[in-house]
Amino acid sequence: MWLKKYSILNMKKIRAAIVGYGNIGKYVLEALEAAPDFEVAGVVRRNPNDVPAELKNYVVTDDITKLEKVDVAILATPTRSVESYAKQMLALGIHTVDSFDIHGSIVDLRRSLDAVAKAHQTVAVIAAGWDPGSDSMVRALLQAIVPKGITYTNFGPGMSMGHTVAVKAIEGVKAALSMTIPLGTGVHRRMVYIEVKDGYDFEKVAAAIKADDYFAHDETHVMQVESVDELKDMGHGVSLVRKGVSGKTQNQLIEFDMKINNPALTAQILVCVARASFKQQPGAYTMIELPVIDMLYGEREDLIRKLV
Amino acid sequence: MWLKKYSILNMKKIRAAIVGYGNIGKYVLEALEAAPDFEVAGVVRRNPNDVPAELKNYVVTDDITKLEKVDVAILATPTRSVESYAKQMLALGIHTVDSFDIHGSIVDLRRSLDAVAKAHQTVAVIAAGWDPGSDSMVRALLQAIVPKGITYTNFGPGMSMGHTVAVKAIEGVKAALSMTIPLGTGVHRRMVYIEVKDGYDFEKVAAAIKADDYFAHDETHVMQVESVDELKDMGHGVSLVRKGVSGKTQNQLIEFDMKINNPALTAQILVCVARASFKQQPGAYTMIELPVIDMLYGEREDLIRKLV
Repeated sequence: MWLKKYSILNMKKIRAAIVGYGNIGKYVLEALEAAPDFEVAGVVRRNPNDVPAELKNYVVTDDITKLEKVDVAILATPTRSVESYAKQMLALGIHTVDSFDIHGSIVDLRRSLDAVAKAHQTVAVIAAGWDPGSDSMVRALLQAIVPKGITYTNFGPGMSMGHTVAVKAIEGVKAALSMTIPLGTGVHRRMVYIEVKDGYDFEKVAAAIKADDYFAHDETHVMQVESVDELKDMGHGVSLVRKGVSGKTQNQLIEFDMKINNPALTAQILVCVARASFKQQPGAYTMIELPVIDMLYGEREDLIRKLV
Repeated sequence: MWLKKYSILNMKKIRAAIVGYGNIGKYVLEALEAAPDFEVAGVVRRNPNDVPAELKNYVVTDDITKLEKVDVAILATPTRSVESYAKQMLALGIHTVDSFDIHGSIVDLRRSLDAVAKAHQTVAVIAAGWDPGSDSMVRALLQAIVPKGITYTNFGPGMSMGHTVAVKAIEGVKAALSMTIPLGTGVHRRMVYIEVKDGYDFEKVAAAIKADDYFAHDETHVMQVESVDELKDMGHGVSLVRKGVSGKTQNQLIEFDMKINNPALTAQILVCVARASFKQQPGAYTMIELPVIDMLYGEREDLIRKLV
């Protein structure tokens, strides 16, 4: 029944709530506005009185139950709060999608949300972004078609959120930006730009950054700048490289490269897996478990005709 | 029931028959021998007395019903005979996979095999190779994550089977090889190497090739050589390029490149979709309709842990 609701009456748009309205949330709004099959049910944020211009025509609330008929909640919250938000919303009968990005904890999150989703006949799509996410689909495809060999994931050049947060936690750092530079074969250089707080010695702060566990294992350069803000750019990139064996044939070479706006791509991916969620049986899924056709807007045979 | 047979008792290997033993069939044998979860049920070919050394330990027959317990038939036959072989085998309760490659007829084949597969509780995976096939999956993924824009598929450098056959059909051609050279934005140059039959004029034969509908619309160079065979190499390549818009953000750039042994990759893909067929409900599927995880050997959570 919940399947028919969307696949047969496909004139009905999917009503999506944006949960969290930071960088990703803003781009999710744009992606929803650009998608022909979605409408914005509203925005959920901690301070519902903070309503920027682009949200003037939408309901902004701190409580998702105040929004009308929400089909899916797009979680644009910090990774650490994904699980509790998702559980709450799945229990309300609302599908959820998130960009949870702690690679080592994805299987645990999937188990936990799978149980809740099945109990409430809903669907959760987890770890949906570009890495984990679309990169994972490419890695899985390369593993399938070239089963023996090594896949290298080379990130950047681009800003690393995790490393930037780690630098900011170091004493004496006023503002920071950590760029990831790919050196090939999964090895990365860290270019760290900082503003130093008054009364702190740059050399000592730089040494503390290099000694931090986030940086100790990589080639790291720390530079003092007047304004970190003037260096910030949300472009990012990845190069996935696999060389290996199909059957008994060596030297199969495949490469996947992206140069993209990071939050815009993440947001678009959240929207396309939100669409796919309505084609799945109740439960929790990573992107490698979804047929890619389910992520696309359009009629099935038409998509096959155009893309296969 | 048919699902449980493979997913729960996963110690049982999938028994695959190779139908057709040309170039692709030979590489399918290698891919099956290399796969930990498959065993070769036998080879079906028109002349069962033609048994090369590598088939000495296998049953070779002209009738699939003479093979013991076949779970899936891997069709390595010419594209034109795929439909009739597939129907026959699906009706016997055997899954089928094929690399049918006439892009314009894929939807029709899917409809036709879908009906037979459903009637006999079997699964057909159609148009499975690298294009159509894994390239289709990448095209679909790029369309999902960058919904507006243009995707260019650039083939080569590599031998085009279709164009080579077209050249051989021209009067006066003794042997031929047509190479596809990518010039970008989906435009290709054709480099045609021919041996000319005695009594024919090279210039006239070359003009006839250039006037042929296969070549009339592309930049085509025809060259006379002493031995076409000495030029043949089964390496091929593709470059899929998409530049477009995620949400409302322009200039998202993605590229997928391969340099591969053509029949080895096709064969490996046939084997991985044969594996996936046992995870689907009865019916016919193109590769963009299959979750990529189903194409992989291994335990589900393990794969998620390693690849997501």
